[in-house]
Amino acid sequence: MRFGRIATPDGLCFAVVEGDGDATVCREIEGTPFTEPSFTGRQWPLKEVRLLAPSLPSKVVAIGRNYADHVAEVFKKSAESLPPTLFIKPNTAVIGPGAPIRIPEFATNVEFEGELALVVGKPCKNISADDWKSVIRGFTIVNDVSSRDLQFADGQWARAKGIDTFCPLGPWMETDLDSIDTTNLPIKAHLTRDGSTETKQDSNSNQMIMNIGEIIEFITASITLLPGDVICTGSPAGTAPMEPGDFIEIEIPGIGRLGNPVERA
Amino acid sequence: MRFGRIATPDGLCFAVVEGDGDATVCREIEGTPFTEPSFTGRQWPLKEVRLLAPSLPSKVVAIGRNYADHVAEVFKKSAESLPPTLFIKPNTAVIGPGAPIRIPEFATNVEFEGELALVVGKPCKNISADDWKSVIRGFTIVNDVSSRDLQFADGQWARAKGIDTFCPLGPWMETDLDSIDTTNLPIKAHLTRDGSTETKQDSNSNQMIMNIGEIIEFITASITLLPGDVICTGSPAGTAPMEPGDFIEIEIPGIGRLGNPVERA
Repeated sequence: MRFGRIATPDGLCFAVVEGDGDATVCREIEGTPFTEPSFTGRQWPLKEVRLLAPSLPSKVVAIGRNYADHVAEVFKKSAESLPPTLFIKPNTAVIGPGAPIRIPEFATNVEFEGELALVVGKPCKNISADDWKSVIRGFTIVNDVSSRDLQFADGQWARAKGIDTFCPLGPWMETDLDSIDTTNLPIKAHLTRDGSTETKQDSNSNQMIMNIGEIIEFITASITLLPGDVICTGSPAGTAPMEPGDFIEIEIPGIGRLGNPVERA
Repeated sequence: MRFGRIATPDGLCFAVVEGDGDATVCREIEGTPFTEPSFTGRQWPLKEVRLLAPSLPSKVVAIGRNYADHVAEVFKKSAESLPPTLFIKPNTAVIGPGAPIRIPEFATNVEFEGELALVVGKPCKNISADDWKSVIRGFTIVNDVSSRDLQFADGQWARAKGIDTFCPLGPWMETDLDSIDTTNLPIKAHLTRDGSTETKQDSNSNQMIMNIGEIIEFITASITLLPGDVICTGSPAGTAPMEPGDFIEIEIPGIGRLGNPVERA
């Protein structure tokens, strides 16, 4: 089931997103997507509403350096010498599909990073890898926007990756965990510039160093996760700079496409 | 005025903390400390309530490497070669005065870091250094607990400094901004082990590299701050390892003392 958060002519709500193409409808639910949905009876065609970020996380916990080819392209080192690491993006960076990524002047060399994201379903701590599905409510897509220059200048990544609008999330959350094979999931990024589109990232989750279960075990050994928190599982290679005027779209089959324009802040 | 968050026999509330020593009383207020207080009329002696963390931050934004002597002791480098940097501690790490810092087995070489903390008073972005008082509601004390081994192993500090209980905060918030000279403020840390207390940190905010205004300008150029968010202004030298059984107390004159026992998780 696909849950979205939407802006309708009557306000904001969570909704189940059903159907495809022009026939897609958003059916409003009572409350939040953390329980079986109860429908209010109101619905809108998707094209008449605006999709927002599908979750309101208290924090976004991200795994860096989780694809060897991306470690090589960014850090010029082997994944063996630079193992996966953990960082946090503040929730003030989160934006929804279609909202502009706004780049301030001092944030130079700003790149997209298309990633599979997990939405936490319940408060959890010390979860073993095998039990990860018991605490994850669904999958979505994240663009872990990063200023490479700030990332290297600061050493710590919180600013380079935490600037307002640097965490596009969406387009919705797919809660049928068994419908997605997280061990073999294509991840693509399409960059459109001056009317021409190029596929920059074209990889697969089978290249992850830490798998989903290991990520959840690793994080929850230290940090309590709360419902709605978002886990970013790392970016494969192919990241590249974005410029104001670009449009960047991350695609993961079975989930959807997350597209955002790029602007000067 | 001192605002605390307290657990009373009747539940949790915010309160104004008045008086000294055994005569200290907590006067319950309506709502939160972000406006002029309206008193409910209920009050308790401080010794009959439990102080909690004085704020419920959406995020804790911290400045690292903001004291040259601490840069030298931890990184063995000059502050010129390693300028201040920004990192985030998740709010799940926050605990109040007296609550135990709980150290998991894998977090080795865990040190205290006594710091002046700021509590944000309103949503803000792009604040100039001179205007910092317009967005800060008050001062408190933070202990930026850090596993040095994880900090260096991970490269990123989010895990080493983000483990549950690794952000003691309190004992309360002092909102009279002019009562504290942030340019000349003693910061001390007293470590008690086996019944004997030693003062480990004994420094002064006049050693800060970025001052308060510069910190607020630096952060808000990138990241929107929200009411209740906590800013950690950096630790001076003297940090040292803690062991289960220790008691660590951070002291800042004019604010108070933040003390926490240390336990094995």
